[in-house]
This record gives sequence, C-alpha cells and structure tokens, in this order.
Amino acid sequence: MSDIPEAMRVSVLNGIHDIVTEERPVPEPGEGEVLVRVQAVGTCGSDVHYYEHGRIGDFVVKSPLVLGHEPSGVVVARGPGATRHDVGTRVALEPGVPCSRCAQCKPGRYNLCPDMRFFGTPPIDGAFCEYVVLREDFAHPVPDSVSDEAAGLLEPLSVGVWACRKARVQPGSRVLITGAGPIGLVAAQTARAFGATEVVVTDVNPHRLRFAREMRATGTVDASRESLADSGFEPDVLLECSGVPSAASEAIRRVGRAGRVVLVGMGGDEIPLPLAHVQGFEIEVTATFRYANTWPTAIDLAAGGEVDLDRLVTHRFGLDEVEQALTIGARDDTVVKAVVLPQVATHG
Amino acid sequence: MSDIPEAMRVSVLNGIHDIVTEERPVPEPGEGEVLVRVQAVGTCGSDVHYYEHGRIGDFVVKSPLVLGHEPSGVVVARGPGATRHDVGTRVALEPGVPCSRCAQCKPGRYNLCPDMRFFGTPPIDGAFCEYVVLREDFAHPVPDSVSDEAAGLLEPLSVGVWACRKARVQPGSRVLITGAGPIGLVAAQTARAFGATEVVVTDVNPHRLRFAREMRATGTVDASRESLADSGFEPDVLLECSGVPSAASEAIRRVGRAGRVVLVGMGGDEIPLPLAHVQGFEIEVTATFRYANTWPTAIDLAAGGEVDLDRLVTHRFGLDEVEQALTIGARDDTVVKAVVLPQVATHG
Amino acid sequence: MSDIPEAMRVSVLNGIHDIVTEERPVPEPGEGEVLVRVQAVGTCGSDVHYYEHGRIGDFVVKSPLVLGHEPSGVVVARGPGATRHDVGTRVALEPGVPCSRCAQCKPGRYNLCPDMRFFGTPPIDGAFCEYVVLREDFAHPVPDSVSDEAAGLLEPLSVGVWACRKARVQPGSRVLITGAGPIGLVAAQTARAFGATEVVVTDVNPHRLRFAREMRATGTVDASRESLADSGFEPDVLLECSGVPSAASEAIRRVGRAGRVVLVGMGGDEIPLPLAHVQGFEIEVTATFRYANTWPTAIDLAAGGEVDLDRLVTHRFGLDEVEQALTIGARDDTVVKAVVLPQVATHG
Amino acid sequence: MSDIPEAMRVSVLNGIHDIVTEERPVPEPGEGEVLVRVQAVGTCGSDVHYYEHGRIGDFVVKSPLVLGHEPSGVVVARGPGATRHDVGTRVALEPGVPCSRCAQCKPGRYNLCPDMRFFGTPPIDGAFCEYVVLREDFAHPVPDSVSDEAAGLLEPLSVGVWACRKARVQPGSRVLITGAGPIGLVAAQTARAFGATEVVVTDVNPHRLRFAREMRATGTVDASRESLADSGFEPDVLLECSGVPSAASEAIRRVGRAGRVVLVGMGGDEIPLPLAHVQGFEIEVTATFRYANTWPTAIDLAAGGEVDLDRLVTHRFGLDEVEQALTIGARDDTVVKAVVLPQVATHG
Repeated sequence: MSDIPEAMRVSVLNGIHDIVTEERPVPEPGEGEVLVRVQAVGTCGSDVHYYEHGRIGDFVVKSPLVLGHEPSGVVVARGPGATRHDVGTRVALEPGVPCSRCAQCKPGRYNLCPDMRFFGTPPIDGAFCEYVVLREDFAHPVPDSVSDEAAGLLEPLSVGVWACRKARVQPGSRVLITGAGPIGLVAAQTARAFGATEVVVTDVNPHRLRFAREMRATGTVDASRESLADSGFEPDVLLECSGVPSAASEAIRRVGRAGRVVLVGMGGDEIPLPLAHVQGFEIEVTATFRYANTWPTAIDLAAGGEVDLDRLVTHRFGLDEVEQALTIGARDDTVVKAVVLPQVATHG
Repeated sequence: MSDIPEAMRVSVLNGIHDIVTEERPVPEPGEGEVLVRVQAVGTCGSDVHYYEHGRIGDFVVKSPLVLGHEPSGVVVARGPGATRHDVGTRVALEPGVPCSRCAQCKPGRYNLCPDMRFFGTPPIDGAFCEYVVLREDFAHPVPDSVSDEAAGLLEPLSVGVWACRKARVQPGSRVLITGAGPIGLVAAQTARAFGATEVVVTDVNPHRLRFAREMRATGTVDASRESLADSGFEPDVLLECSGVPSAASEAIRRVGRAGRVVLVGMGGDEIPLPLAHVQGFEIEVTATFRYANTWPTAIDLAAGGEVDLDRLVTHRFGLDEVEQALTIGARDDTVVKAVVLPQVATHG
Repeated sequence: MSDIPEAMRVSVLNGIHDIVTEERPVPEPGEGEVLVRVQAVGTCGSDVHYYEHGRIGDFVVKSPLVLGHEPSGVVVARGPGATRHDVGTRVALEPGVPCSRCAQCKPGRYNLCPDMRFFGTPPIDGAFCEYVVLREDFAHPVPDSVSDEAAGLLEPLSVGVWACRKARVQPGSRVLITGAGPIGLVAAQTARAFGATEVVVTDVNPHRLRFAREMRATGTVDASRESLADSGFEPDVLLECSGVPSAASEAIRRVGRAGRVVLVGMGGDEIPLPLAHVQGFEIEVTATFRYANTWPTAIDLAAGGEVDLDRLVTHRFGLDEVEQALTIGARDDTVVKAVVLPQVATHG
Repeated sequence: MSDIPEAMRVSVLNGIHDIVTEERPVPEPGEGEVLVRVQAVGTCGSDVHYYEHGRIGDFVVKSPLVLGHEPSGVVVARGPGATRHDVGTRVALEPGVPCSRCAQCKPGRYNLCPDMRFFGTPPIDGAFCEYVVLREDFAHPVPDSVSDEAAGLLEPLSVGVWACRKARVQPGSRVLITGAGPIGLVAAQTARAFGATEVVVTDVNPHRLRFAREMRATGTVDASRESLADSGFEPDVLLECSGVPSAASEAIRRVGRAGRVVLVGMGGDEIPLPLAHVQGFEIEVTATFRYANTWPTAIDLAAGGEVDLDRLVTHRFGLDEVEQALTIGARDDTVVKAVVLPQVATHG
C-alpha cells in the first residue's frame, strides 16, 4: 500500500447550492472491505435533487454529504479477511450495502433492507472523491471491454435490468417506455437485450427521442405532438421512467390484457391509478426501489455489447467541477449523462 | 327429456327499477351443452347495480335482460356431443363462457377473453329463471356435502380463490381485507384456507365485523372508530374488497415490504396510488377480473369444510321476488347474502 | 374457391419402409377451420422413426398414415365461421389441435391435452400432401420476411422457445446444449435470443459443431474427444437435446447450483438421475412435450432475424421423394434439415 | 452472565460406534452471536448415519465431532453487537450459518452456500451439548405455545415447509408422500396446512401408517401389500421421503400431468428417472437441500396448531444417552422421533 496517500480530495455538499472541494483522510478498509481508487462516477437526478432541495422525501441532508453513487475504480488495498479481488482489479461498485441479516436480506430482497447504507444518501457519503471503501462483495470486477465510465454506468443499467426482470420482459414482449432520460434510454436497450420485439419510447425532448432510436428503440412518440392513444401501440409491458404522474396514468391506460407496469420514475407522492382499466385487464403494477443481484447480468450485457453505455456519456467533469456536472442538465437539453472523473481536478 | 316442460318462468329486467316475471320457451342445449334446472342463484352487487342504474361502465342494458350469475342446479338434458355429466348430476355453474380460441384463452387467462359470454351481463341472459343452458365444461359437479345454495355461492368463493392466488397467500401470510361484504367475508375464509396466519378485516358495519370474526378472521378493525395505522398491523397481503378509493389508498400505505395488493372491489374509475410507498417497499398491485380455473379448488374448499358458504345466506326469495332480493340489502344491514330459489314463485 | 381442385396428391406411409404417393379428395374446412395449400414441410426425427419402426412408444401406425408436422402454406378457403384469415394469407401451421375444454387446456397447458389431434401421429394424418385443413387459430400468419421453408421450421423453433421458457433462460444465463441436431441448433440460437451470455453445444459430429458455432453458439465441445468435465464449463441451464441417457446423466452432473435442466431429446424409457448432485445443488429437472403458445414468439424471432431458420435447410425434396427425405440423414452426415415441398413432385 | 459455568458437558463422536461424554469450555459468543443453553435436540437419520458409517458422501468425520442439528434453547448471553434477543428468550435454532456474501446467499438461496457452517456436519460441531453459540439471526424466538421439544423439531418441519414450497402445494393439491418416517409424517401435516385436499402416505411400516392417518393424512397405502398403481391415486405433487430409488421411480410414474416431484429422501447416488412419463406429462422434478427462510413459517404452523410436533416425540434421552438415542430406532419400529435433553445426564 506504499503508493496510497494519507489524504484525498473530496467534493462535499454543505447545503443547498453549496458544494466545495476539501481534503479528508483516505479511509481504511475494514473487515472484508476493499479500498478503491475512484475512476469515474456518473451523475444522477437524485444527486441533482439533493443539490437543489437538500432532501428527497424523508432523506434530509443535515450535515455535509458527499454525493455520487455510480462509481467505478480500481482496488488498491484490502482490509482484513478480504480475499476476493487482487490489488489492481478494475471494479464497478454497487453503491448500497445492506445488513445481510434481516427478513428482507435473507430471502434475497436486499434492496429493501431497512438498514441499507447507500452511497450519497444521508447520512452515508458517496463517491465524488478520490478513494472509497466498500464491502468486497459489492465491488464487481469488470473485463477490459467495459470502460471506466461504462463501469460506473452499470448502476443505471442495473435499474434497467431490475425493471425488465420485474416486468418479465422476454422475446416477443411489446414494451412502452415513458421518458427518455438516462434511465429510459438504458431501459430501452435493456428491454431489447431481454428480447423485446418492440420498444417504443415517449418523451417531449426530440434530442432524446433521436438518441432512443439510435439505441435500439424500435419506435418513438413525441408526446408534445402526438398522443399515445393515437399511436395504436398496445404494449404488454410499460416501464414508466418519466416520473410524471399524468404521463404514468395515461400510459397505464394503453397497456394490454395481463400486462405489467413497472413504476421506475419517481415524482410526487401519488399517481392516479386507472382502476377500471387495471381491473378489466388484470394489469400488474409494481415498482422498483434500486435493485438486487443485478451487477453480474449488467456486466454481461455491457461486455457483450448488448447495451452501449459509453454512448450515453455526453459531458465530463473533474472533481472540482461537480457543481457544474450537477447543473449543466438544466441549462443544456443535449445532456444525457454527465460523468465526474475524480482523479482530475478539472476536465478538458 | 319427457319431464322437461316447453315453457319456463323467467325474471326479466326491463329497465331501471323494472323487473317482471314472464314466460319463455325452455332453451335447447346446443353442441356440447347441457340443460340445467336452476336450484339456487345468489344475488350480487352487480345485479343490484344493473337494477338501480341500468349499466356498469360500458355494459349498458339496452334490451330486456335476465340477471343472476351465481347459479347451481341439476343437469336435465344434454345437447349433441355432451358426454361429461349424466342427467341428474348436481352442478355448480361457472357463469362465463369464453371463446377458447384467442390470445387470452389459449394461455389460460380465459377470464380476459374479449368475447366472453357472461350470465347477466348485457346482452347475455343470466340465471334468474327455471332453466339455463351452458357449455358442459362450465358445469362443475358438486358432492352431496355441498348444498344447492352453497353450490351457487361457489361463484363468489371463486373470486376469493382467484384473489388469494394472485396475492400468493400461503402459510405465514398476514392478510388485510378491506370490506366485509360477501366477497370480503368469503376472502377471509379463503385466505385462512390458503394458510394465512393472520387475517384482519375492516368495515364500518359492526354486524359484518362480528360475522367476519365468526368466519375465521383473526382480527377486525371498525373503520368508523379506529384507524388502520393505529392498529399497528403490517400486512404482507391486502385484498381490497371495499371498492372505496380512499380506503384502498389508505390500506395500501399499511402494506409491508414486498407486499402484494389485489384490488377486488370495484368503485370509481381511479384510485390514488401512494407512489412513494409502492416504490420504497416494491409493492405489487394487481386486480381481479372474475376468475379462471377456480371451481375445482372452490369445490374442494367448500366440500372439505374449509369455507362455510351456507352460513352466508341470510335471506331467501322465490322467482317472483327477485326485486325484493335485489333491494333488501339497502334496507336491512343484517343482510349478507340473499339467494333466489327459481323453482318456487315465492319463498316462506 | 374456384381454383381449388377436387383431388390432391398425398404421400402415405402404408407400413414400415413403405411410402407411396396416392390421390385423395381435397378435404373441406369444417366449422372454424381453414383449408391451406401446403408450401413446405420440414422432416423430423419422429417422421423417420415411424417410417423405420412403425411406432413411437404407445403410438402405433395401424392404418395408412400421412406423416409431416412442420408445415407452412397459404390459406385458400375458409370453413363456416372462420373469419381470422383472408384467403391468400401465408401461414405457419401449429400442427396439434387440442380439445380446448379439459383440465389441461383451460389453464393453458394445451400441449398436455389427452385428446390432442396432432399431425402425423396415429391416427391423425399430417402434412406431406398438397392441402390440409386446420382450426383457424392454429394457422399463424407470417410476414414476408419469413420464407415458406422457415415458416415450416417454426415448429422446431417452437420446441426451442418452449425449452428456453421452461429453463427460464435470460440475460446472463450460461447454457449447455447436448446434441447439435436440428433441435439443438435451433435451441442454441433461441437461447441466445433469450439473452444467454454463453451457449456451449456438445456433439460428436464435427459438421454439426461447426454449424453450431456459425449459429450463435459461443463454444462447442466435441464429445468424441473431450470431456465436459474437463471443459470447466458450469452451466446454469442444460437443454438436453441428444436423447442419449448417458449423455444426459453426465451433463446433469455439470449443472451448477439452482440450475435448471430441460429434457428435450427423447430416447429410452429411463435416464439415470444423479440424485446426490440434483439434491445438493437443488437442480430443477423438467421436460418438454411439444409446446404451447409459442408460435407468436417464434414468428417474432424468425422475422426479426434473431434466429436463422433458412440456414438449417440443407436438402429439399418433392412430394414423390418423401422416402428419400426421410432416409438421407442416415446416409449423409452433412444433412441438417431436409424439407419436403408438396407442390412439386420432384425437386431439383 | 454470572450463572454461566465455565465448562460444559458435550457428547462427542470419536469414531464409528464411539460416542463419549466429555467436558469442554463453554464457548463465548462472537460478534453478532448469542450463547444458547440447549434444552432439546431432535435426532435425525443423518446423525445415525455418521454414527454408523463415519461419513455421508463427501462429508467425512476426521476428528471428534459433536452431532445434533435440531436444537432449541434459551438465550443466556449476547456477543458484541448482538441486540435482537433479550437474555432469557426461548429460541429455536436454525442450525446452518451461511456466508451471506456469495452468489447463492445474496439472491436468497443461502442453503446452497458453499461455505455453509452446519451443525453436526464435519468439521462443524453440533448441539448434543449444554451450550452452543450461533449468529443471532439464526436463533428464532418461539412463543410459549411451542414446547422446547417442538422448537427443536422445527428443523424437520422446515424440511417439510421447504418441500411444500418447492412443490407449490396449495388448496386443491393432491399429494403423494412416499415414506412415513419423521420427514414424511411432518410433510403430510405440512401439505395439509398448505391446503392440500388429499394427502396419501405410503410406507411398509403399519405403525407409521397409522401415525400418518392420525396426523392429517387423508389416506395411506401399505406398500408391502398394495401397489400404488392399484390405488388409482393420481397425485399432482409427489414428496419423495423414502430415499428408496425404486420407490421413487415407481411413484414418479403415478404423478399426473404438469405435476411436481420433490426428492427429499436421500439414498443412493442415482435414481432411474422414467423419462417417457416425465416428458409426456411435463413433470417437474426437483429436490431439497436443507431449507432457506423457513423458520418463521414453521413457527406459525406449530404455534397455530396446524402441525403437531410434540406428538412425534416417542422417546427421550439425556446427554449421556446419545448413543442409545441414535440406535433405538434400529431396534424398535415404534420409534418416530427420539429427542436428547442435554441439561440432564440421563432421562427417566
């Protein structure tokens, strides 16, 4: 561990609209943990939300918080009992570590663990920094065919994999995806990788719709000009990625008999559920909260070229530029995914 | 077929609040059909709704309609090619016959068949009459341990069985049932028969709550005086049988992690779905539209004494008294289930 | 129906090693049926088995029988009540028609119907002839991108789809396929279309192994020279397509924890099940008997280019050459799939 | 912890047919562990097998081993970080602790963990002793309605629960159970608790068949005198609990279409799988290896009186009598379950 410094640079959210870079000690890996030098971290709408509002629902930023939960890196040291990864292994980091002991964890639903410690969610620090520690079984080795940036974006890909599993997407599926943000775009590719025959994406942003078509969607609907009903498309799966209650409700009404709806997008406390339609067609409505056991599959999809994550990265920033990374999306509608590269202060 | 008359008496809904008894020819069983002398027919909220409003959603009573879709009877004749049942066989009638040819029927979801012909749903006549014909495979033989009235009530029991299957109720399940009408009461017993460890029923009618406790519920909540939240009960299954949107929404908020919600009760076009709760706990919300492949199990439950259907019958009427059967519930809150006995003109 | 002749030519199996072409009346489509002019019919190992042995298990050829159960064609007439397909529609024929009324059919498992009427299985005639009739819902329209020959081969593709569904193949699956006959080769492509990350095929025929690699297998093992155990491959899914009991048993021992085995290949009455391995790893072993509800998905896979069926056709014959079509495989190990084209007497 | 002694008495298997009681230090609970005073421990066929043969398959007794894996007790001390159970809590002990980190554990299949540490399986010591330590989440509190002995027998009940889950036993199921040993008898009760309508048990021991009838079996077949085939019973579920390959094979041939077989009984390396039957009826054959996530349900079943575990206990022994407990079954065919009570040296 001779080349690991004692201190590192960390980007800290001190309050709403207040991010600074400061110095902190490099953490030490505990029992069964590894120390990872962070190479790339995707930015996510939830990072932006904490920056803008200081909270998401019951999660309130009360003390300085490091954001960032889409990291990749390289194992640089191992704590006691950590034996899985050699030093030097390139890894994607699954950013939430559950208790592994409770009634949710033991049957395999560890994403629902009430004691989950999740990167960048108060009070747990995230990955906008030079080094992080993590339980070794949440650091997943990636092959060379997966770039550092793509390895970070296995996190949103995991959201797509989890949604497609919950929706039971398979060859022959007709999938509607509402919202062509990063999650919607990843979900479109994932649905195709699961064999979906048709994948139609809706949004109001024409840049993103064009992106969707480039990324394996078989059709798009510009919701600012066309109605879903007029499109005549009757999906058997809806992956709701817009977080807009009215869009969700409208889209559910399009789903065919015995269809499945997965509510991925967050937004508002309630959506109006079209009861008569849901009953008459016996539609199954469920939702995703993060993911469980998805990294191995996500790595396979990225490594095999089924899903192109690199293509999603439109903007890059250094560690001193986290604030810009979190705000550029509001100013520039060509942004798909902004990535932070913590080993540099400024990018480009 | 010597003892089958040429004409029969039929109770007909001519319009809102307008039911008369008239004479019609006894129908002839077609290819693969049986002619059944009707012994007992349960009345249902949907019968009442057609009587009061002349429609349910898109189903509008445009011409005279025979109501009644919870019938039992005796096979008295067989059409060409009908070989399953001997004349004299006591049968429970599954009141909807699908096409058996379409994309819903062939994978086994025949309840979602767009060409379903369902008793007492416009324009298909139901069973408030002396004789009906039915495809023989929808007439299910019942053992002597199941009474004529109970055989009719296998229809609501099928709703309960279907709901418990969708909810995956099993030993250890904690089940909340909102609404102690006939469906809720049957669902409570069914959930227990599926092994549920706790079954809590809520309603505002104390008569029905007492009934629920007598019928295998392990607890009740009088929603007019107590709040579900205060009860501290965290179900993993909710069978929503009230049809009241606010009750449904409130109850969904009580469901625990990875819980299942089945929306059985009909009422209103929309319910407010508590999105943050559904997402955070990854709750699965689905609904029932009638049932498929439930009669064999329902017969087993009734014949084995797991579910007591006879106990639900509080009032009986003859064929000339269908109007009274459909209106008594509004006047008398001790009514649970009123049954019509078509072989008599008036009862008692 | 002016251009439909009264008589047609039919290839008939009169006994073991005894096939003749004779003339028969063109059949008339009954209620809900269509008349189809047959364009192409794949030959199958079971056709060969009837030709060689006069029986398969309990199915014994007692009277003249028309073989052939992988047909495609064009709708040329419709029986009473048949409304789905316009005359002229190109269709793939699902060759077994169940009763649609029994305890297997109604829950969707119609392949297990005890009253199944299956083409080319005694005493039901098959499709080595110019015209056949079929219930219209078992004639599936195909788009122009699916050739006549490929449309016939949707039947073996359906076997692959059914096997992959039973095995729950999905992105990330590691699949072992034992046997690179037509079913194994189709299964390999299907498994890839279901998202399998690795698909390893074993056989002793190097031609077929090369074929497998060309058809999306990610690896092959020549079982005449290498042992599976040495390959180090630990699949989570085994699709057993060889029908060789010892190969099946050996392959099951390679399957990893919680793996699934689907026994597709027929051969012998018993296979030795490695109990200690199946228990210690909780392996699920199941089997396929034909298929149910697979044509829509098979059409999607073929039309979308996920599976290449045309590539499988190595030999073609006319209706007078059925005997050659059924015997060439024994003489020539480069045969993959021989197809009969019933509208010509001789091919090539 | 003032009343915990420093030393305890332990029953040790030193080799085949060689068990002695000796003194050892009372173990100290580690991080997240509890120390439990053992009240009752059921004996199991695998204990007997180690005693008689010194091995089970690859598990070989190389050094002194404490047997016993069906324990109950009282929490008497807590290790660092153990907070779930108050000292004094009565608990049933789930006797295998997995790593909670691997590809089997994280999706919830912890019974398949390659690093499982299981009581009484070399080289891990079991519970025939006065005190044991265990990870606190594998000590399950039991209510007063569950006796100490019944709490120990939650272990075999868990086998039954796991088997019924794998077989998807539900209301209406027809279940065949081959073998009326303790597991078969528990499985019969469990199947009834899962709603099975018919449960038929076969064995050659008339005492045990009478026992089965007393314990909720609806029928029995004395396999020494009657054949299963003659009984006419066509189950849709087979729980194979005999471990006799020929009995297993014969019973599988009785299972109806789309039936499920769960191989619970261990015995021999192979069983002859009737391929033609398994294929023609698409039977699903799987197996159990211990259990996962079953204690909460098992406790519910025992506490609610659905399963009577106390009735199974026919013989009791003290800690100095473990050898007798393990050998009495071979001498006395009225033995169902012998229990060791470690807090006494000799019983009765």
